[in-house]
Amino acid sequence: MSEPRPAVDASAPIGVFDSGVGGLTVLKALQARMPAERFVYLGDTARLPYGTKSARTVQRYAVQAAGQLVTRGVKALVVACNTASAVALVALREAYQPLPVFGVVDPGAAAAGRVSRSGRIGVLATESTVRGGAYQHAILNLRRNARVFARACPMLVTLAEDGWIDGDVPERIVSSYLGAFLHGGESIDTLLLGCTHFPILRDVLARVAGAGVTLVDSAETTAQHVATAIERTAGAALEPHAARLLLATDDRHRFARVGRYFLGEALAAEDIELIDL
Amino acid sequence: MSEPRPAVDASAPIGVFDSGVGGLTVLKALQARMPAERFVYLGDTARLPYGTKSARTVQRYAVQAAGQLVTRGVKALVVACNTASAVALVALREAYQPLPVFGVVDPGAAAAGRVSRSGRIGVLATESTVRGGAYQHAILNLRRNARVFARACPMLVTLAEDGWIDGDVPERIVSSYLGAFLHGGESIDTLLLGCTHFPILRDVLARVAGAGVTLVDSAETTAQHVATAIERTAGAALEPHAARLLLATDDRHRFARVGRYFLGEALAAEDIELIDL
Repeated sequence: MSEPRPAVDASAPIGVFDSGVGGLTVLKALQARMPAERFVYLGDTARLPYGTKSARTVQRYAVQAAGQLVTRGVKALVVACNTASAVALVALREAYQPLPVFGVVDPGAAAAGRVSRSGRIGVLATESTVRGGAYQHAILNLRRNARVFARACPMLVTLAEDGWIDGDVPERIVSSYLGAFLHGGESIDTLLLGCTHFPILRDVLARVAGAGVTLVDSAETTAQHVATAIERTAGAALEPHAARLLLATDDRHRFARVGRYFLGEALAAEDIELIDL
Repeated sequence: MSEPRPAVDASAPIGVFDSGVGGLTVLKALQARMPAERFVYLGDTARLPYGTKSARTVQRYAVQAAGQLVTRGVKALVVACNTASAVALVALREAYQPLPVFGVVDPGAAAAGRVSRSGRIGVLATESTVRGGAYQHAILNLRRNARVFARACPMLVTLAEDGWIDGDVPERIVSSYLGAFLHGGESIDTLLLGCTHFPILRDVLARVAGAGVTLVDSAETTAQHVATAIERTAGAALEPHAARLLLATDDRHRFARVGRYFLGEALAAEDIELIDL
């Protein structure tokens, strides 16, 4: 027996949630695909990172943060944080049903499973995403004979946050993380970027992985999935800056300074509203 | 006019507080200097790191976390977190007076000011410690003609947390951070490790800095300062393991796994009590 769904206000904004600024890569992809939609983005910067915390804590934080977006009348929720997508999606769906809740894990896993020829797929993610096994399970559900190699890459998060994306140090760190995946005929042919921070490092990741490896970015595949699934707002394309509201739980200055790398646009502290959770 | 101080129970434990496991380097130094004392250590692992957060947020977290130790009847509080020492010491002293509250910044700064011959002192710390200028001010207060060069080193925190302390990658990252400090006759002669994570990387820091640079570790200098200042408990030396209680706000397994590097002793998840703040 299903409850009657409340009438959806198509002009309501879509909520996008992340532990910090990394999810701005997802927001950027969503805005590119759905230019007539409005968005409210919340970065829980006071409590980031989620990637080193326990599942129980991440669930609690995610439900609390999403509540803030629900209060603001969003018509759908996109969990742009890989860690929260991996461990808190069920809790979020239960807490806010019948609100449609989308994560980044399933779209990313589906895309990786689809593009891989050999079925040998590498996944780079945070410590808790890897430990929870969400990407491994999602890929194997779709493609039973795949071989999935997952690796926690905490240094890539710090490099991306720091904007340290060129030169010798990022290259050596990436080589060290990818080394075990890249052995001649046994090499992976697909590399899934299972953390919203990693697209920032796409150039160095592609160079080290080599031409034989396809990079799959869960930001792009998630935007595609969300755009297909939810009711589209009719109307003219909006100016991206005007069509989004940015919320953070701490330090608007840092959010603006680091966030501009992820959003690929200029950002000022005044563009961000500080909230308490 | 000073209020009468309540009688201090000399056998009460000393509280030690940090955002995570890094402060275990301070606990270790305290236990070595004060073997008859008991300690309660609290790592606020659910909300780490503090080093990228605003002063206001760090103050709020620190006062809340310290309250937990005060409830457990500590006779003094050691703030083993550089970031909280730099921005929250006044708030903590106000909140819990007349409890003696010790930070790591002043002892570290005093030691660096004392050992430097040239007065050219490098400080490696977190983003918010550097931005707040606490070490710079503390050193210049003590030694007016010193020249202090401070650098935020987020990658060193991640390296230490990850136990990645040997080899080419840590060496290159340290070289990149120290490069600007080490120019021939203009080089620093003293390097202050202004984050409790950094003593873990002491070997590579010393190697890159070279023989002409003295490393000052605020864990050791703080332990010395605390031992001099507070009433010592008479009695026989206690077995370190039995003389301390370890509390964490998240993930006992990670605390044990990462914490053992900092404490320099075996640790199991069962040694840590999980609390909510």
